[in-house]
Amino acid sequence: MATLKGNAVIGQSGGPTSVINQSLVGVIEEAIKAPHIDKLLGARHGVRGVINDDFLDLERTPKELLDRIANTPSAALGSTRDKPDQKYCEQIFDKFRQHNVRYFFYIGGNDSADTARIVQELAEKAKYDLHVFHVPKTIDNDLRVHDHTPGYGSAARFVACAIMGDNFDNRSLPGIKVDVIMGRNAGFLTAASVLARQHDNDGPHLIYVPEVQVSEEKFLSDVDRVFTKQGRCLIAVSEGIVAPNGKTWAENVATELASHGEGSVMGLEKDKHGNLQLSGSGALGDHLADLIKSKLSTGGKKIRVRADTFGYLQRSFPGLISDTDATEARLVGRMAVQYSADPNNTQGSVAMRRTSNSPYKIETFLTPLATVAKETKHLSPEYIVDGHNISDSFKEYARPLVGELPRIGTFDELK
Amino acid sequence: MATLKGNAVIGQSGGPTSVINQSLVGVIEEAIKAPHIDKLLGARHGVRGVINDDFLDLERTPKELLDRIANTPSAALGSTRDKPDQKYCEQIFDKFRQHNVRYFFYIGGNDSADTARIVQELAEKAKYDLHVFHVPKTIDNDLRVHDHTPGYGSAARFVACAIMGDNFDNRSLPGIKVDVIMGRNAGFLTAASVLARQHDNDGPHLIYVPEVQVSEEKFLSDVDRVFTKQGRCLIAVSEGIVAPNGKTWAENVATELASHGEGSVMGLEKDKHGNLQLSGSGALGDHLADLIKSKLSTGGKKIRVRADTFGYLQRSFPGLISDTDATEARLVGRMAVQYSADPNNTQGSVAMRRTSNSPYKIETFLTPLATVAKETKHLSPEYIVDGHNISDSFKEYARPLVGELPRIGTFDELK
Repeated sequence: MATLKGNAVIGQSGGPTSVINQSLVGVIEEAIKAPHIDKLLGARHGVRGVINDDFLDLERTPKELLDRIANTPSAALGSTRDKPDQKYCEQIFDKFRQHNVRYFFYIGGNDSADTARIVQELAEKAKYDLHVFHVPKTIDNDLRVHDHTPGYGSAARFVACAIMGDNFDNRSLPGIKVDVIMGRNAGFLTAASVLARQHDNDGPHLIYVPEVQVSEEKFLSDVDRVFTKQGRCLIAVSEGIVAPNGKTWAENVATELASHGEGSVMGLEKDKHGNLQLSGSGALGDHLADLIKSKLSTGGKKIRVRADTFGYLQRSFPGLISDTDATEARLVGRMAVQYSADPNNTQGSVAMRRTSNSPYKIETFLTPLATVAKETKHLSPEYIVDGHNISDSFKEYARPLVGELPRIGTFDELK
Repeated sequence: MATLKGNAVIGQSGGPTSVINQSLVGVIEEAIKAPHIDKLLGARHGVRGVINDDFLDLERTPKELLDRIANTPSAALGSTRDKPDQKYCEQIFDKFRQHNVRYFFYIGGNDSADTARIVQELAEKAKYDLHVFHVPKTIDNDLRVHDHTPGYGSAARFVACAIMGDNFDNRSLPGIKVDVIMGRNAGFLTAASVLARQHDNDGPHLIYVPEVQVSEEKFLSDVDRVFTKQGRCLIAVSEGIVAPNGKTWAENVATELASHGEGSVMGLEKDKHGNLQLSGSGALGDHLADLIKSKLSTGGKKIRVRADTFGYLQRSFPGLISDTDATEARLVGRMAVQYSADPNNTQGSVAMRRTSNSPYKIETFLTPLATVAKETKHLSPEYIVDGHNISDSFKEYARPLVGELPRIGTFDELK
């Protein structure tokens, strides 16, 4: 088969990560060298940049600037929340045809993989040669087929460090502390809080992920049990925690708040897809703290109850990046272009497979877009213990992605 | 004057910091070597440990563990929120007498300096030789006489990195973002957000500190001006932001929420001193986001508005510590014991004076407890620009304390 020659477009989509620009720079580095790619165009704000003809010529970026961009969190080309429908995809395809674009590299999650898939199918139907590659990124770590996704390791490192610090804060000034962690549908990021535990009585003492329905009763009785035993309790809760009625706790809070009069109160609002916006509001954490204060029986003793919502810091924090994550994010970007050099590879998502856990080793492979698109991968049930804890096997899975954590100590070790 | 010999007590007090254990280990290291100190007792949970006879023998801590504890955020001996009155101080003094304690080292802020002062005066009145040394720590950086305080540099580094990351997040998915930063009375920590600006249009675009009263009208008109010009707006707000009625915005929010029916809603509650608890709740951030959504005129266009409250992460985050801060925290602990070796030094707070800013150099000195006790130092008016910005002179002041920040880059530099 003859090599397909032409221009390439690269875009970034969805929620940013700390290493999404590593993947971008990986694509740029390889594309500059690749004989099958003429010009590499960067679409500003993902597919929106494509349909608006808003492109950057990336090949004139000096190496020194590329190095700094690789280390900069969040999408340097700009991102988008647009989820293209068929018509939107047709517009994308038209633009590609106009610009003789033969390669499309799209960095994103499962929605982006789906967009890539639709555009590729349109091209196929029109008998226009277009090769389409999805480069994975998501802090949620929820892509099927992929062992894990770039962006997750650094976000998980942030969560592990934050919970580690908060565990000592909570030891130092005992009470009950709720920490709300990102993850609407998948609990991988919240589960990473377990890595913070280095001593027997270290928190997080309770971990709730969206994969398990939790009732108010169970939640309160768990907290009561831990607090009675330890005199303190650190709780890691996913923003997507689900109640027995199948709705998220956040939705239930929003309904309750709305009944007080206002449609949008305490930062809670719905997006255009009708999903309740979970991040960027402290409402769920505050609700959980209020719930504990009002319903936990403490024998009249006033307990210090606080909540923090980690929010956007988790996904865009510079200076605390997992080395493994940064390296792998760069690699999947580079591999996307390398795979594209083979004319037999007409489409696919660049995935990682773990070939060894100790020492940790991975290899990349190309998986069809349809295997990654749309659907979400969930935390495996074997990782979840009693509905409020995370297993050691998960620690083994996550540790190499997060990297070495700070070495800490307590005077309890003297005993 | 003959050297005073006897036992020593060390305690930690108030909100933890990332480097408060550096100071503790500094005291331990020197006390082990000091001929004038027999035993060094660690009071668990500050003065509360003193009156409860809850002490640890610190001299038997192995060096390897001390090294790890020094790197562990938050108070390893436990902290306390007790603010001793005269009677409480008398109990402390009685315990000191019982245990032949001749040296008291207290790591804390201005309240702890005041406790140390009262105990020292009680001893003096009773003609009991007790030498009392305050070792500074506070992320608020609000101690008089001190150029700056250990704990601030690392918390400021967290804030600068968080805002830097959030600026890129906000560039990537434009909208209006509110970040609430710790600091009830002093704006030093919020002001550190200015260090995140590395390019002309980088956020934070607006910075509000408790030293300036801000009306809803000014706030909204500032946001409108920035958003109209830049198409996005990143706002750094101190949790202690004050309204023109002299009350904090948080108090006004609490009053408004209380009028909806409940006494404690959305995490807002008052402490035993009658102060509204600001941290550990997302209510202020959520209120500001709602205010922007409901009152900013956007010509019918829906704008993405989000709020994050950095919360306790700022003060206890491992893995992101300022080297200068860690070194200085260790130093003031060591110097406290070294100053105590001179019998003429009967009391004082170990302060730092900046002898040169470029290259950055400091020296320590002992300042009387009364010069540091109780009162809060505020951000100097010369650091505040137009009520919503922070000056370059503040950057010069804060930069050496925070250390080098990650080097980042954007494609705008291509222009």
